[in-house]
Amino acid sequence: MTTQQNDFSKWYIETIQKADLMDYTPVRGCIAFKPDGYEIWEHIQEEMDRRFKETGHRNAYFPMLIPESFFQKEKDHIEGFSPELPWVTEAAGEKLEERLALRPTSETMIGHLYSNWIKSYRDLPVLINQWANVFRWEKKTLPFIRTSEFLWQEGHTAHVDEEDARKETMQMLTIYKEVVEELLAIPVYDGQKTPSERFAGAVDTFSIEAMMKNGKAVQAGTSHYLGTKFAEAFDIKYLNKANQHEHVHTTSWGTSTRLIGSVIMVHGDEQGLILPPRIAPTQVVLIPVGPWKKNPEIIEKLDDIFAALKKNGIRVRLDDSDQSPGFKFNEWELKGVPIRIELGPRDLEKNQVLLKARDEDEKQSIDLNDIVSAIEVELTTMQSRLFEKARTFRDENAHTTIDTLQELQQHINSSKENGTIPGWILAGWCGDDACEEKVKEETKYTSRNIPFNPPTTKTTCICCGNEAKQTVWFAQAY
Amino acid sequence: MTTQQNDFSKWYIETIQKADLMDYTPVRGCIAFKPDGYEIWEHIQEEMDRRFKETGHRNAYFPMLIPESFFQKEKDHIEGFSPELPWVTEAAGEKLEERLALRPTSETMIGHLYSNWIKSYRDLPVLINQWANVFRWEKKTLPFIRTSEFLWQEGHTAHVDEEDARKETMQMLTIYKEVVEELLAIPVYDGQKTPSERFAGAVDTFSIEAMMKNGKAVQAGTSHYLGTKFAEAFDIKYLNKANQHEHVHTTSWGTSTRLIGSVIMVHGDEQGLILPPRIAPTQVVLIPVGPWKKNPEIIEKLDDIFAALKKNGIRVRLDDSDQSPGFKFNEWELKGVPIRIELGPRDLEKNQVLLKARDEDEKQSIDLNDIVSAIEVELTTMQSRLFEKARTFRDENAHTTIDTLQELQQHINSSKENGTIPGWILAGWCGDDACEEKVKEETKYTSRNIPFNPPTTKTTCICCGNEAKQTVWFAQAY
Repeated sequence: MTTQQNDFSKWYIETIQKADLMDYTPVRGCIAFKPDGYEIWEHIQEEMDRRFKETGHRNAYFPMLIPESFFQKEKDHIEGFSPELPWVTEAAGEKLEERLALRPTSETMIGHLYSNWIKSYRDLPVLINQWANVFRWEKKTLPFIRTSEFLWQEGHTAHVDEEDARKETMQMLTIYKEVVEELLAIPVYDGQKTPSERFAGAVDTFSIEAMMKNGKAVQAGTSHYLGTKFAEAFDIKYLNKANQHEHVHTTSWGTSTRLIGSVIMVHGDEQGLILPPRIAPTQVVLIPVGPWKKNPEIIEKLDDIFAALKKNGIRVRLDDSDQSPGFKFNEWELKGVPIRIELGPRDLEKNQVLLKARDEDEKQSIDLNDIVSAIEVELTTMQSRLFEKARTFRDENAHTTIDTLQELQQHINSSKENGTIPGWILAGWCGDDACEEKVKEETKYTSRNIPFNPPTTKTTCICCGNEAKQTVWFAQAY
Repeated sequence: MTTQQNDFSKWYIETIQKADLMDYTPVRGCIAFKPDGYEIWEHIQEEMDRRFKETGHRNAYFPMLIPESFFQKEKDHIEGFSPELPWVTEAAGEKLEERLALRPTSETMIGHLYSNWIKSYRDLPVLINQWANVFRWEKKTLPFIRTSEFLWQEGHTAHVDEEDARKETMQMLTIYKEVVEELLAIPVYDGQKTPSERFAGAVDTFSIEAMMKNGKAVQAGTSHYLGTKFAEAFDIKYLNKANQHEHVHTTSWGTSTRLIGSVIMVHGDEQGLILPPRIAPTQVVLIPVGPWKKNPEIIEKLDDIFAALKKNGIRVRLDDSDQSPGFKFNEWELKGVPIRIELGPRDLEKNQVLLKARDEDEKQSIDLNDIVSAIEVELTTMQSRLFEKARTFRDENAHTTIDTLQELQQHINSSKENGTIPGWILAGWCGDDACEEKVKEETKYTSRNIPFNPPTTKTTCICCGNEAKQTVWFAQAY
């Protein structure tokens, strides 16, 4: 098997295929999400959806096909998305009068409808989310991380004023940070995007950024304050309390199935996947060892454990197939199952099982009488441990002492020579797009975000050396 | 407002718009599902999904775009679906080499993938379901019931032999019947479709059929035994225990957002929607009456009731807006909220509230101390009552004594004269497609299904008068 060190991308592809998360399809850049891959998404959906509803949002569903003329209405939006759109041009044997785009995002369709739905300040805020498939016909694709079709949620809200809309934008970013950190055990930096990295049509874009094990960044979620730009383009007005017409202020925010890819790239190791317990399709696998077939008590006991764990809401599997224990250990490690329980005749004599956490080297002996609580504790502990390991890794590879383009180039070169990860750098930025562009051209590092809580603050621009207006994370990104 | 009696279709459209379930969009035949409409779907999804998982199924997600060549592989399938397909012909500024269809259903894409996934009898059965959007570009559309884009679930399973596949087909039909009857309070007849009404590419199609309040039928769910037709078309083979290659036997089964439309058309009345409690977005609305603004105790008490109901998992709203009670009563009736609670100063003196069930004329007095349990009881009672009302209505309008085409025509004409509903008829059928076709041409009645448990059995064909091989429900259908 390819190692992470030798070829991270190849390791990633091999790992997700062997773990049975996805398959390629004959449609360019479109993957099939197999049950173990899709179930990770279902756990993410469940948690996100719960938090959206707790904060007053409701789900709706909007048409997937968007008339070409809708895109024309907001000029930044069409500029940003038109290079990637697939088009329906014929249906039921006839050529359409107007081309219909497969939605890359739904601001335009929703803007059109909100202009009918919103009449008065009494109708506001409108707090709606949609779970849907979207399309971006990109040249380079990577399963889960960047696919032509992907699954996501997109929130679209409308508010009486900027203050209320900005509050919403921040609230949703916070929810994203909490879910990604608590559920996926992925530490993220939340912050503001620079203008060149904004969503097409946004006044302000905020993101959470995660570091993969090869040091690259993944934008794990974004939340946009759209100002009145879409309200003006689609004429979304309300009658305020003084009986005057005003444009609403809108927001949008999204997370997608790229989170599945991020989990793999943050936690996986040379043995395959490591899944945080809260999203693992199988949390515990039970494996009989030794001469268990001659000793029916072994399977009886494992059946009891299975029933007890299931009753406590733990997702458990019993592997009583004919393969050897070693083969099974390997297979379930590959799939990233958090906990393996081994039970053989000798363990039974001692009234114990062996517990192996996927991310630890040593096995623990567990008294059979304490098994449910011991597993519950280990699942919780492992969830925190994975987060801490990922945070330590990120902090070690997020450099804060590289202050010039030359230093960055030296750092990249020496990383290459030493076979280490160049990682992220925290650097000052004068605010000029040209400096950002030059950093990108010379190093492939792009600005990720301006963190709300940077580890330190920078005073000079990494590129021109002038006074820094912002302290920015730069990284190579997916 | 239009009445059901005068113009049922117009009543339906007005009702779902006033109840805020949907909106039209500029894309032909595509609607927006507003939150109150979408939430009905969420409740359906939750219950279906739970039952699918209980019976060993897992969710997955397959690409929406299907290469044209895939459709060519199963000839009945392409014949059935090609007149309704929308096509993507260009993407990212370039013409595609092969047109891609927006999926009308996924047998072909899934067949292609299963041929890679299934190798041995150990891989079987494959039990996968998908929640997705699908497209059928139909000429006549009706919100929820028949739209160009709709939401559905499609199960796709593969089995070692016919027996196992047919067992699955029946199991899923039974789940559909149970969910539609128990959750949506819609009585259905389960049975087998005649060959002319089969799914394009199926060996056998089974359906559940529901009667709307205008007497028309809606096919509320279908389950297909596909034999080895798709396995042969896509080369899905497995190595059996005797080490020989065999084709798998496949099934597919689906229910869609047309269930939302069915609920409206089965339960609604002249005052608007009537929603079965189990799927109502709001189950209970609390409305202060009388001079409540001068008496802060009223709202305090309603707040207490709100909290108590919410704590018990009941979906409750408090309407303390400035509108008159009469206006509010009307609005919440229109939305089909199962229970309205009224509280005014006089009720407070008597330590009671008034409870009005949406489908009953009389109000009940409820002691404030018993309010949660009284509401819980009423929600359960109402759920059963709606089912019984719908069953009585259906049985009254499902005629079993019309045995010739002439009698059917007379029945239709006299219904028209009397302003009554012609409804369904149970009739004998000789098994000849031509007889079915003639019934359709002359009366617009089509065969709905051959019920497993018909109220009675017929001996002569309604059309040719020869011996009946089957007893069939005929009806005008959506």
